[in-house]
Amino acid sequence: MSEASEGWRPVPRARTYELVVEQIEEQILAGTLRVGDRLPGERELAARLQVSRAAVREAMRTLEAQGVVRAGVGSGPEAGTVVSALPSEALTRLLRLHVALANFPVSDVVEARVLLERATAALAAAHATPEALAALDEPLAAMATAAAADRHLYNDLDTAFHIAIAEAGGNRLFADMTIAIREAMRLPILRDLERLDDRAWADVPRELTAQHRAIRAAIAAGQEQEAARLIDEHIRAARRLLSPKEPPEEA
Amino acid sequence: MSEASEGWRPVPRARTYELVVEQIEEQILAGTLRVGDRLPGERELAARLQVSRAAVREAMRTLEAQGVVRAGVGSGPEAGTVVSALPSEALTRLLRLHVALANFPVSDVVEARVLLERATAALAAAHATPEALAALDEPLAAMATAAAADRHLYNDLDTAFHIAIAEAGGNRLFADMTIAIREAMRLPILRDLERLDDRAWADVPRELTAQHRAIRAAIAAGQEQEAARLIDEHIRAARRLLSPKEPPEEA
Repeated sequence: MSEASEGWRPVPRARTYELVVEQIEEQILAGTLRVGDRLPGERELAARLQVSRAAVREAMRTLEAQGVVRAGVGSGPEAGTVVSALPSEALTRLLRLHVALANFPVSDVVEARVLLERATAALAAAHATPEALAALDEPLAAMATAAAADRHLYNDLDTAFHIAIAEAGGNRLFADMTIAIREAMRLPILRDLERLDDRAWADVPRELTAQHRAIRAAIAAGQEQEAARLIDEHIRAARRLLSPKEPPEEA
Repeated sequence: MSEASEGWRPVPRARTYELVVEQIEEQILAGTLRVGDRLPGERELAARLQVSRAAVREAMRTLEAQGVVRAGVGSGPEAGTVVSALPSEALTRLLRLHVALANFPVSDVVEARVLLERATAALAAAHATPEALAALDEPLAAMATAAAADRHLYNDLDTAFHIAIAEAGGNRLFADMTIAIREAMRLPILRDLERLDDRAWADVPRELTAQHRAIRAAIAAGQEQEAARLIDEHIRAARRLLSPKEPPEEA
């Protein structure tokens, strides 16, 4: 047996608090810990898991930062750390970071967005209530006013329109994923918008508005296939309009 | 002006380290911090942000626990905290927790899964390489052996088959989302499997295997529509097979 030194790499060490986090997550996934359940106190948890109280505290802070638990206040029956429902924002936030950091090809993100929004537009056509349609009309009306003035605001309203479609479909989980991807595109789209010179920008809102209105009409008419087809075309057309050719590498 | 006491609620306080986390995330989303970039040291960051070093340390631990940064070791040019690419597992993990905690109706999760897997099966039919097809065959062959013996193993192999389809489509972001939802279903599906009595179980693997093979064939033949249709039917059929009626509320 050789003892060549180059073969040796440090063993990755999971830190104690990470193991505590893992145990709690496993119990959540197994369904033995549910939303609203109170965790044992720091001292008791440390004793049961045979780890230091510092490790338990660290684990609780990590889970709290992620929205998985909520620290209680005071010392009565309301005290202690409680398992809480992860807010949709926690998912949206991580998906945005994931898209920003993972360096997916932009075309992959656009295709993922097309696939998700095709499905959410069809769901919206099948399920939209009058209230949900009104929620579509709000950003549409505001975009007509904002278009000339403010690209940043226009982009926010455009995001709001696509989010309203996802909400109108009535499937919360699917809406969360669609919203996360659209949110992840907010900044890259804004950069595209800002890169356009004023002459190029002059035509953009008119074309996008016509597309938005057609999508809204198909959803209101309950035309699932048509709504899916139109939003697919719209996302690809907007991309061609905003980045006619891929920008050069950033300086 | 009345001074009714019941109108007063504690102002929600963002803790300092959360504000530090937020600033770093904003820079990542804005693209000014990229994967591989080194953050300023604890002392410098504390001075720039005008917060305590403890708050910076806490923020770093939180970001590290989420896989957004990696702590450096030593004190040379390699030291310091570096922005790291979020692993796909971080996303999968959070989406699983989200599904477990958010208490979505199971039907919403199933519909989201159908929509995602329809799209990934179509992508797989369009893009699968010989290697990707071989990766489908591995869990299929193993399921044939495992079926009779072990429902837990069968469920793992079934998960692996669906993940291999998502991987075969070649869109990493979309695959990550599909995998996360399928992973989130691993435990509920296992519970369904374990609930079946032996007689009911006897028929299940044969039916599922026939469906799996048909999906594999459509993908190999490049039939996008057919692959989407078959996986849609398969997911719904499996659900009927495994939970013929919704289980009663858990005791």
